[in-house]
Amino acid sequence: MELDFKKLDGLVPAVIQDAASGEVLMLGFMNTEAYAATQASGEVTFFSRSRNKLWRKGEQSGHVLRVREIRVDCDVDSLLIRVDAVGPGVCHEGYRSCFFRQLSPKVTAERTFDPSAVYGKDAHS
Amino acid sequence: MELDFKKLDGLVPAVIQDAASGEVLMLGFMNTEAYAATQASGEVTFFSRSRNKLWRKGEQSGHVLRVREIRVDCDVDSLLIRVDAVGPGVCHEGYRSCFFRQLSPKVTAERTFDPSAVYGKDAHS
Repeated sequence: MELDFKKLDGLVPAVIQDAASGEVLMLGFMNTEAYAATQASGEVTFFSRSRNKLWRKGEQSGHVLRVREIRVDCDVDSLLIRVDAVGPGVCHEGYRSCFFRQLSPKVTAERTFDPSAVYGKDAHS
Repeated sequence: MELDFKKLDGLVPAVIQDAASGEVLMLGFMNTEAYAATQASGEVTFFSRSRNKLWRKGEQSGHVLRVREIRVDCDVDSLLIRVDAVGPGVCHEGYRSCFFRQLSPKVTAERTFDPSAVYGKDAHS
């Protein structure tokens, strides 16, 4: 089974999931070399788009990602890699997961009338 | 907080995770319109790269993805969307998750000698 690297100019996204907890830890990209290095070493290796080179996750921090299982999706253009995450956290900002922020709805308009005056204090319609 | 759509020519990857089980169900891409539609409707809407248009997941199958929570990663260029998945499965091939295949190591070389003759039957070195 050949991974489809063509859809994204030579890259496939790789979702990294903690094999024990199921937590999604991060998302990175792999080119063919990064994917081969991941398979050969058993440690997740990405292609860094900002630095334009291979990046073995944890090469600086020691927080490596040991591959437990690699899954591929129906279109063969995305990877799900279940790992044992070594160390206290994956994110360079000091969190266990890079997805440490929730996007909450933000009010972007100004109120034009007082709803409690129209609908009463506890009304929802 | 502005999502960074520039790194991937107007797209961000969105990992879809079952909010109840933690299972990773699929990965899709969103442009600004798909992201806005997802927020407005509360149902996951992707940008289909193959069809070059917005694609509300489940518009044909009824297997929609109801947004429970949207998280963003440290670089603000990837989304993790935790959902209630309506219906028996997400994948168009009939599986609960699009990641239904495991990649196993495949032997690509020919054996050049009989290891048991050299190392004995149970040796591992």
